[in-house]
Amino acid sequence: MNSIRIISDDDVEHILDLKNTILCVENAYQQKANNKATILPLVSADLVEGKADMDIKSGIYQAENLFGLKLVAWFGENEMQGLPALTGMTMVFDLKNGFPRALINARHLTAMRTGAAGAVGIKYLAKKNAEVLVVVGTGHQAVFQIAATLTAVPTIRKVYLYNPRNEEKAKLLQESIRTKLSRIRNDIYDLKNEKWIQRIETVEFSAVNNIESALSETDAVITITPSSQALIRKEWVKPGTHISCIGADLPGKQELDETLFKTVRVFVDDVGQASKVGEIQTAIRLGMVQKELITEIGNVINGNEKGRLSNKDITVFDSTGIALQDLAVADYILKIAEEKNIGTIVNL
Amino acid sequence: MNSIRIISDDDVEHILDLKNTILCVENAYQQKANNKATILPLVSADLVEGKADMDIKSGIYQAENLFGLKLVAWFGENEMQGLPALTGMTMVFDLKNGFPRALINARHLTAMRTGAAGAVGIKYLAKKNAEVLVVVGTGHQAVFQIAATLTAVPTIRKVYLYNPRNEEKAKLLQESIRTKLSRIRNDIYDLKNEKWIQRIETVEFSAVNNIESALSETDAVITITPSSQALIRKEWVKPGTHISCIGADLPGKQELDETLFKTVRVFVDDVGQASKVGEIQTAIRLGMVQKELITEIGNVINGNEKGRLSNKDITVFDSTGIALQDLAVADYILKIAEEKNIGTIVNL
Repeated sequence: MNSIRIISDDDVEHILDLKNTILCVENAYQQKANNKATILPLVSADLVEGKADMDIKSGIYQAENLFGLKLVAWFGENEMQGLPALTGMTMVFDLKNGFPRALINARHLTAMRTGAAGAVGIKYLAKKNAEVLVVVGTGHQAVFQIAATLTAVPTIRKVYLYNPRNEEKAKLLQESIRTKLSRIRNDIYDLKNEKWIQRIETVEFSAVNNIESALSETDAVITITPSSQALIRKEWVKPGTHISCIGADLPGKQELDETLFKTVRVFVDDVGQASKVGEIQTAIRLGMVQKELITEIGNVINGNEKGRLSNKDITVFDSTGIALQDLAVADYILKIAEEKNIGTIVNL
Repeated sequence: MNSIRIISDDDVEHILDLKNTILCVENAYQQKANNKATILPLVSADLVEGKADMDIKSGIYQAENLFGLKLVAWFGENEMQGLPALTGMTMVFDLKNGFPRALINARHLTAMRTGAAGAVGIKYLAKKNAEVLVVVGTGHQAVFQIAATLTAVPTIRKVYLYNPRNEEKAKLLQESIRTKLSRIRNDIYDLKNEKWIQRIETVEFSAVNNIESALSETDAVITITPSSQALIRKEWVKPGTHISCIGADLPGKQELDETLFKTVRVFVDDVGQASKVGEIQTAIRLGMVQKELITEIGNVINGNEKGRLSNKDITVFDSTGIALQDLAVADYILKIAEEKNIGTIVNL
């Protein structure tokens, strides 16, 4: 209990790259499937109704001998004052003796590990050689979803950008996306990000206003909106499509037509959490999907369960975001920080 | 999200005194009763079965515009290596914008606010002018229970020390108790602790091996052991006694004969939490106490509910420890730290 390492958001941006974030998230899912990582119950609360909420995700990462938690708060009105809407902290403790090891700003960490989740869903569940990605939602997190998917799925060469409420925002993202992507670190050995910038330049980005038409061209979809009603109708989704659902992470949130779940194969990060707060919550409640038929993605990654069975399957990955993603990424950040002496060590 | 204040355990020992801790804890109970403070569900987990566990207590303290959490871990085997068994951290966030404000070492804070809980139970529920206190349990926390009770209840002049397993430990505590008490800060305006030391000297401390006999002499009892079976039998408790039960805070823990609950008036810090993990858990499960008849102590402190009705009542205060105690005390520590510029400010 002598000291703790404090790692700022700037430090995290400096340390964390996309490739290693994706590896950490894949590893977190696998360790959970292997019973070497445990998630604890989610705590969530409205702080100011409709304007601010927070959640606490905690877990034990036996695989790396640590445990801890992340508290993230969302204050929608912060942006009007030029402040970030999302704030939060990750705390890491040593599983050998309970001593605190690190306090890490959770903002960039959360953006990166959430982007990695959508990408890992596509990597393991979409048809091989997927070339087109449709992204529903054009906010801050959409950029990280695209960044991680271009990294994890090298065959993607075209990305459709769709905003269900405001076409203009999709066009603005189309104009700025390459610059935004190029700012995210993507190779720890290539500090100038040169290979990453080359990769970005091979991709075509197009804002679309007809989602039905875009879906007819694609094999891979990511939904990343705060919606509480279906944005994608069942009949728009062609056979063979994979959808990573990232937006729904609280009761009442939903992005897909729930009747879609009658015919799709369902994968999740954690069955318990997804059933309560994820995209599948409505389908579960209405009995359109049976918990017994849901597969945790870690079991696909470690080879114990089958992912996609044919080129006609529609697959859905419902990612609610689990503490183990945070702990796995925090562990990586901490190792680099210790090695390079980044951050501030403070007596406790 | 620019910076956070880190406050070490030494800083907390320097800042926090018994009198203000008791005021904070009383205030936390009252604000909860007034709906100006909210507790969120407890998360608890075994880390190493029987050897290490942890819990996360979180809440919103609207009264002081903050929210946050405390993670506390217990590693029983640490002591064999000369390390503290209890470790933990408190994090405080601003309820106006979600920004982190402070990270505070939770060890001394927890000891102080837990001591205050037992004392507040006696102050509000024991007979007036209680002179004798029986303390069941002689560990580290027993000292804080005694310290806070001597502070909150000025009529106490005699303290019986009882260890249910090991008489020798009670004798050792009898020898060291005055020194231990004198080290705890007890008046922010009296840095030499002189008045506090005078108070300690007026009290007689006696190790006892016959708990039945000690109980026949007393009006106020505190139980503070890790026991999982009843230590006090129903027939030993005379009419008019008040018992503050502090030890039970996890499923399976118990210090009193559960049949006692058929006849006592029951007070708790939080009905939901006490029913699950507190002293009343067994009595609740066996239907010996009805939830509707349980009173939260905050309602007694703010005058909305009656406490003791007669000098013959047996009253029990079941304190499981709630996040609001931590947040109220953390808020006080933070105010003093900001005023006197104590702690380390680190960029986030």
